[in-house]
Amino acid sequence: MEKLAETHAPVPELVQRRWSPRAFSSRPVEPEKLRSLFEAARWAASSGNTQPWSFIIATKDDPENFGRVLQAFNENNQAWAKDAPLIGLSVAALNFPGSDKPNRFAFHDVGQAAATLAITATDLGLQLHQMGGIFPDKAREIFGVPQDYEVVAGLALGYPGDANALPEKLRERELAPRQRKPAAEFVFTGQWGKTAPVLAPKS
Amino acid sequence: MEKLAETHAPVPELVQRRWSPRAFSSRPVEPEKLRSLFEAARWAASSGNTQPWSFIIATKDDPENFGRVLQAFNENNQAWAKDAPLIGLSVAALNFPGSDKPNRFAFHDVGQAAATLAITATDLGLQLHQMGGIFPDKAREIFGVPQDYEVVAGLALGYPGDANALPEKLRERELAPRQRKPAAEFVFTGQWGKTAPVLAPKS
Repeated sequence: MEKLAETHAPVPELVQRRWSPRAFSSRPVEPEKLRSLFEAARWAASSGNTQPWSFIIATKDDPENFGRVLQAFNENNQAWAKDAPLIGLSVAALNFPGSDKPNRFAFHDVGQAAATLAITATDLGLQLHQMGGIFPDKAREIFGVPQDYEVVAGLALGYPGDANALPEKLRERELAPRQRKPAAEFVFTGQWGKTAPVLAPKS
Repeated sequence: MEKLAETHAPVPELVQRRWSPRAFSSRPVEPEKLRSLFEAARWAASSGNTQPWSFIIATKDDPENFGRVLQAFNENNQAWAKDAPLIGLSVAALNFPGSDKPNRFAFHDVGQAAATLAITATDLGLQLHQMGGIFPDKAREIFGVPQDYEVVAGLALGYPGDANALPEKLRERELAPRQRKPAAEFVFTGQWGKTAPVLAPKS
């Protein structure tokens, strides 16, 4: 299944095709594709090149570790993520390396790595679904994540599957058109709330 | 100038070619390319589709507004960003829309939009340089950014220029090879710090 963004201006094909499915095929993800995904995340930008991102991952063919990751997801997300071939958690280093000075960009740069991974997944025929609905403290306990790190988001990744295999409520969401507010509402010039001329609707 | 990432596994060309130059050409960025950049950012993923990102931008041919953005950068960044054809600031909505409940993913998802914009810039022959070295409170004052938003990062964007035009110290940095820690140091399975088997160095 594909779910193209309905764009108002041309965007790279990988951006247009990226989306967050809940229905995944049971087809395993090839190890070389996993290496490409994390290699791409590795080259994301970060403030002062601090690279504050880590990932804890498990594949479905490793049921013990898969179950450990799944426990960190809330019930709603467990319901569909249990069928993805790979699940995981992103983790942020909260301080600058070797210091106790907080890095204001810790979450921001984990987001950059995650977005780079998502776009790369699309390039490989895969899709990534990120989840806010997780238990960060439970995840910290399960995996022994140190105090100066914080578990950020849940991840599910695989080849897109059959929406009809989802429970009815999730199936509706899976098939609904993708929605975003227009760029004119969030790109400003000169003053907060004043649409940048280049994005202002033509009169 | 190009500055390819030296990857350990194949990554999409746009990921390999993306980097953060300080030397920009004076060539203006075409309005249709600006529309594509923010359209791409628009389609980034966000927790619960909250889309917490905004951008304040100014082009060099609009000296008044360009100067306002530049004032929000620290001196080190002003030194080179003053010559970029477009500069800006990213801004995060701190709460869930229409509520005072903090959105834990505000900065994370601004990072996702910024990374998507950066990759799109590369696709258009442009490059984006993000900056942590800004004065968020000064920026809030200059642009009237509301209290439930926070200015996140500085941005400079344009066609890459001539590194030789930079002051010596910046020129060295501009020409130095790109560095990242290996993925084996940040992708774990089963326990914090235990490299995922798929990324473990072959023995």
